[in-house]
Amino acid sequence: MEVNGFRIFLLVYLGFSIILSIFRVYKQITIVVVFMSSQEDIQKGFLETVRFDANGLVPAIVQDHETGKVLMMAWMNRESLEMTLEKRKACYWSRSRQKLWLKGESSGNMQDVHDILIDCDGDTLLLKVSQKGGACHVGYHSCFYRRVNEDLSLETCDTLMFNPEDVYGKKS
Amino acid sequence: MEVNGFRIFLLVYLGFSIILSIFRVYKQITIVVVFMSSQEDIQKGFLETVRFDANGLVPAIVQDHETGKVLMMAWMNRESLEMTLEKRKACYWSRSRQKLWLKGESSGNMQDVHDILIDCDGDTLLLKVSQKGGACHVGYHSCFYRRVNEDLSLETCDTLMFNPEDVYGKKS
Repeated sequence: MEVNGFRIFLLVYLGFSIILSIFRVYKQITIVVVFMSSQEDIQKGFLETVRFDANGLVPAIVQDHETGKVLMMAWMNRESLEMTLEKRKACYWSRSRQKLWLKGESSGNMQDVHDILIDCDGDTLLLKVSQKGGACHVGYHSCFYRRVNEDLSLETCDTLMFNPEDVYGKKS
Repeated sequence: MEVNGFRIFLLVYLGFSIILSIFRVYKQITIVVVFMSSQEDIQKGFLETVRFDANGLVPAIVQDHETGKVLMMAWMNRESLEMTLEKRKACYWSRSRQKLWLKGESSGNMQDVHDILIDCDGDTLLLKVSQKGGACHVGYHSCFYRRVNEDLSLETCDTLMFNPEDVYGKKS
């Protein structure tokens, strides 16, 4: 009777130990899985928030990070956005040339990216950059170099930074 | 002989006078026509420079005219642009609702337009405005209220200006 009682106690004890161990291991695994997936969520947080349009593009407004002056607007696909994040140099998708466009690759007028912001709908980006030279292919500091007067005529309101012919060569 | 000479002189004089008068009137008409057409050109200068996309829309970046803070980006068709020019209150084309959208018509958060700039390609506008309340329908001052961290997580970086439920009502 005593031997049987001890055996039953031993079996119950072993059973509980095994169940407890399984539970502990499961808990540890769960914690690790939750941690990993949360890390993955944080990692993917931004890229999953971006809503590319039907052409796989998102507009990016480019602003001088010190003065707040708006320099240009360009379009990004996922690849150019990932390249921008990696290099911290602004990279766009050229809709006219249908290729990746590292800003400044021809002119040398690169953009160092200090900050990226995303809007409420996730369908527009705002890049805060420091612009080397001028942002505009016409030679101005900003692409927005023309202001609309009250009579709807246009007036130049920006500084010419370079001669486009010197930078891109003469148009034939 | 003398009478004939006088007659010829008179005829020549009259001829010259008539030709001169015609020339003067023509010149006056030309000046008026050129002036009118130049006025028309100036009037149409801006609107003819805008390049609307295949959907008849152009993106408009909206910036605080004093601080330079970028508040939002919205789309304009020709009608909303003309309304903006007329009222000097920002008016857009709502792509989701497919109708004209006078900014602030529901929330009261109107945008007084101080300046309009156009980019080199004519396919993007920049509005410098004074924003009443917040620009964002979520309640923030700017739609760009989230900054991307280095680990690609998102961080709130703006001030909540109003409770959207108070402004737009509760979502059912």
